Amino acid sequence: MSVQLLGISNAIVDILANVEPEFLEKIDAPAGSMTLIDEKQAREIYKMMGPATEMSGGSVANTVAGFANLGGSAAYIGNVCNDQLGDIFVHDMQSLGVDVRLPPATGGSPTARSHILITPDGQRTMQTYLGACTELKLADITAGSVGEPDIALLEGYVWDIPEGPALCAAAAELVRKNGGKVALSLSDSFCVERHLKEFADFVEKHVDLVFADEDELLALYELDSFDDVAPDLAERAPLYAVTRSEKGSVIYKDGESVQQDALAVEKLVDTTGAGDAYTAGFLYAYADDKPLDICARAGTICATRVIQQVGARIEKNAMADFDLGD
Amino acid sequence: MSVQLLGISNAIVDILANVEPEFLEKIDAPAGSMTLIDEKQAREIYKMMGPATEMSGGSVANTVAGFANLGGSAAYIGNVCNDQLGDIFVHDMQSLGVDVRLPPATGGSPTARSHILITPDGQRTMQTYLGACTELKLADITAGSVGEPDIALLEGYVWDIPEGPALCAAAAELVRKNGGKVALSLSDSFCVERHLKEFADFVEKHVDLVFADEDELLALYELDSFDDVAPDLAERAPLYAVTRSEKGSVIYKDGESVQQDALAVEKLVDTTGAGDAYTAGFLYAYADDKPLDICARAGTICATRVIQQVGARIEKNAMADFDLGD
Repeated sequence: MSVQLLGISNAIVDILANVEPEFLEKIDAPAGSMTLIDEKQAREIYKMMGPATEMSGGSVANTVAGFANLGGSAAYIGNVCNDQLGDIFVHDMQSLGVDVRLPPATGGSPTARSHILITPDGQRTMQTYLGACTELKLADITAGSVGEPDIALLEGYVWDIPEGPALCAAAAELVRKNGGKVALSLSDSFCVERHLKEFADFVEKHVDLVFADEDELLALYELDSFDDVAPDLAERAPLYAVTRSEKGSVIYKDGESVQQDALAVEKLVDTTGAGDAYTAGFLYAYADDKPLDICARAGTICATRVIQQVGARIEKNAMADFDLGD
Repeated sequence: MSVQLLGISNAIVDILANVEPEFLEKIDAPAGSMTLIDEKQAREIYKMMGPATEMSGGSVANTVAGFANLGGSAAYIGNVCNDQLGDIFVHDMQSLGVDVRLPPATGGSPTARSHILITPDGQRTMQTYLGACTELKLADITAGSVGEPDIALLEGYVWDIPEGPALCAAAAELVRKNGGKVALSLSDSFCVERHLKEFADFVEKHVDLVFADEDELLALYELDSFDDVAPDLAERAPLYAVTRSEKGSVIYKDGESVQQDALAVEKLVDTTGAGDAYTAGFLYAYADDKPLDICARAGTICATRVIQQVGARIEKNAMADFDLGD
């Protein structure tokens, strides 16, 4: 089946708990960061955490779920183990109509989990054990598993797994060969710093759309101020969609830029998934060939909704009051 | 360690999802009911459900967690499997300081799960696969596992498992022998109907406090109207704490009754756990030898909090603004 959007990413179950800021100090985690941890550290963090809520997560997986929930056709490639958390992940995707292209792996590491520590300011700090994600292989990327999506969405975090760079390149080539576009979400600024050179090369060679927040973009171009990077972006080849929190977002493409202001937030609950939801809304309009201002508006509506709820995935009716136009 | 409250109950992980009322018709489930289902039915229901959130649940387990979160000392006996859902259940208890008295079972059925279907009116309908719960045995109830709690809290649902009636009787005898009190939560009216005679006998022989909503109480005494049962209750031996939704609650004891009005609800989100939270607040004050009007007020505050949030377990600060008095 040909779909509008194919996501390829780390398949993760989120373990969400509220913590006080002191908890972050105790585990030496910068607020707002995503840190990779091993199985032993995962056990330790989990033991220290209070009661938690579990729900399917993963950055691009959130976007794919949101895209499907808005009504788009979507498929997904990521590796989970055939354990209970893996069942939960696959269920939550399939129940939205997402075509999950790989069956859960038998044996191997357990399904990945991200301990999401939510401080009273609504910010999230993630401690992620990649588990089964690390066993996603280049060999999983085939003409059959990739198909012919209109857009393939990759995430920077995939570069953290051994065959990640190779499998992303292979996927991008397959998708573009069939006339599809390749989008990349930069994940987080620490991730960008981990893979700076690889990302710059990959963007140049393979990418049509880059989704990034301001920090990620500054990290990618090794600049200190958004004012330094902005004038240059519009001249670069891909489309850049840059989210800037309360400053809204800016889209750069073919020498032009489109500014979208942030929308009013009644009550900030949890910023988890704001960027992922933005990307879902944006791509939902983009896949339908809408102009960039409509795409940016759709993304902003979804992001605004998701930060006013607990959890990272947008609801079906997130854009109920928004008409994309003809 | 001697604790104030020991809970003995079905250890369950909740799988919560929003559904439309039509979903309940399709699966032929009366709104607000709890239906026991087998493993095959559990797979089918889960497949039909949309994306879900997982969190530790179980009626008396919620009460025990809430009691500990309020600051009480608590222990718990229930059976989970040593699978990922079992780990989640035990973690969430232990992270609140609850002394989990049985280790997760190796082998046997998987950890129990309750599919909680939340309709737009905030009501929950439960489809519960008991799994590992059914393997809680009389042999698990020993002087060592029970200890010497001030209060042991049992739930009607335990009568749904093969050795449930016998293990509850054994636990009640151990607790009372050491001067502790026995409380029973009647769980739901369908459960009461399933075990009518056994409950009536058990209450007469073993119980000091009965927690029930109006429907459960009418089922227990096979009467049609609360006005018929109320005059009689105060004369019966145990303390009865009866929750009546928007009519508040009434406590009956030694020929007296105490009425507690409901508190204002700003926004009803999800009624899951209202009764469990009431019991937690009530017992927290009761274990501290507070008068019954304070107990009822504490229960009401906790219940009012929990129905304005997603999920069944009360937060640490649920009674932050309430002074129990000296």
